Amino acid sequence: MELPRILAFDVFGTVVDWHGSIVREVALLYPQVDADALALAWRAGYQPAMQAVRSGGRGFVRLDVLHREILDGLLPSFGLAHLSEPEREHLNRVWHRLDPWPDAVAGIARLKRRCTVVPLSNGNIGLLTAMAKRAGLPWDAVLSAEVFAAYKPDARTYCGVAEVFGVSPQAVMMVAAHQDDLDAARAHGLQTAYVERSAEFGAQRPKDVSGSPLNTLHARDLLHLADRLGC
Amino acid sequence: MELPRILAFDVFGTVVDWHGSIVREVALLYPQVDADALALAWRAGYQPAMQAVRSGGRGFVRLDVLHREILDGLLPSFGLAHLSEPEREHLNRVWHRLDPWPDAVAGIARLKRRCTVVPLSNGNIGLLTAMAKRAGLPWDAVLSAEVFAAYKPDARTYCGVAEVFGVSPQAVMMVAAHQDDLDAARAHGLQTAYVERSAEFGAQRPKDVSGSPLNTLHARDLLHLADRLGC
Repeated sequence: MELPRILAFDVFGTVVDWHGSIVREVALLYPQVDADALALAWRAGYQPAMQAVRSGGRGFVRLDVLHREILDGLLPSFGLAHLSEPEREHLNRVWHRLDPWPDAVAGIARLKRRCTVVPLSNGNIGLLTAMAKRAGLPWDAVLSAEVFAAYKPDARTYCGVAEVFGVSPQAVMMVAAHQDDLDAARAHGLQTAYVERSAEFGAQRPKDVSGSPLNTLHARDLLHLADRLGC
Repeated sequence: MELPRILAFDVFGTVVDWHGSIVREVALLYPQVDADALALAWRAGYQPAMQAVRSGGRGFVRLDVLHREILDGLLPSFGLAHLSEPEREHLNRVWHRLDPWPDAVAGIARLKRRCTVVPLSNGNIGLLTAMAKRAGLPWDAVLSAEVFAAYKPDARTYCGVAEVFGVSPQAVMMVAAHQDDLDAARAHGLQTAYVERSAEFGAQRPKDVSGSPLNTLHARDLLHLADRLGC
């Protein structure tokens, strides 16, 4: 295995715990609401919302806007139709306030010693920047679907990372807890590292973390990935 | 004065010493060459090269490519026509290895406490990321002409910073040692801070650093700017 020069990280679920963070914040703000169900429903709206952009039916729209549209659609069924504009805007920005998995900050800091570390997330630049500043994620730069005006798994995102840094696709490793993201990255020549995040949908709802044997590496978490890469 | 939420920094000349860095590296690599003249000639090709993109006569091209085209044109007149492809590529990447002004890292680190700090440079993302990693510039994210596919002073760059972060232009302050950059930023509603860099073209060639009275702030360096912003 050639040591990758660039590590491009999926963020939601891979670096940060979106489910746990949303559940905790919603439970504090609106204790009468089923926070677990709201978190799952919000995330379930994510792929269909991006699909309208991917299909070309809609121009590129930042994820902050898509998150808000999904939220507005969900609020009535959770008894929150009365939320004011500032309350909705504040709640929508919970995606800027997601907590990292316990290993993420230390893992990225170690990986950064030998590689350039960037997110490659469908989150918009402002979201990823606010999240990193709050959580202390030590990115070398912030890449995003927004930079390429295309959502993963569009080829422009994976190939774009290599182009931005003037390296071959093989010099980039995609790091993700989602096999479909890694499969798409591999199809465009990137190396791939699968990260186990069995509690992505909540500890009481463990997901399969076997990953594909086609991945370059398989890591329990980002500290283990740093071990595997000799960082 | 409203405290800006976002500080967007010009980089070449404002944060890093392009002239001194290029002179030092060329003097080491090619002691027979007039390094001062080469640095000035290389930089003098910068605006004309971008103008072809600004005018729409050429699609957006990364600054690494423009720097290389200018360099290739200059080498014969500096007795360096014999340089190999790897030597040219290495020399071209001196722009990735520019040294920060002595106050820059500490100044940005202080400013980062109260504001989001990003470059807004005509340098490409890869260049700015490599420079920041080497020099320890603690950006919160890396913005660049490349993100907006337009070179300053195109409106898309200044307005783009506010759009990326979902704030009003007035919540963004452009920080630069070049009055024309600040004038363009102000025309699009940004606040402006002028930074004195009298030695930008070499200590023996001091430039006028009076700045315009229209700027929101005038600072001797980035530590002084941190003082002025209460950071």
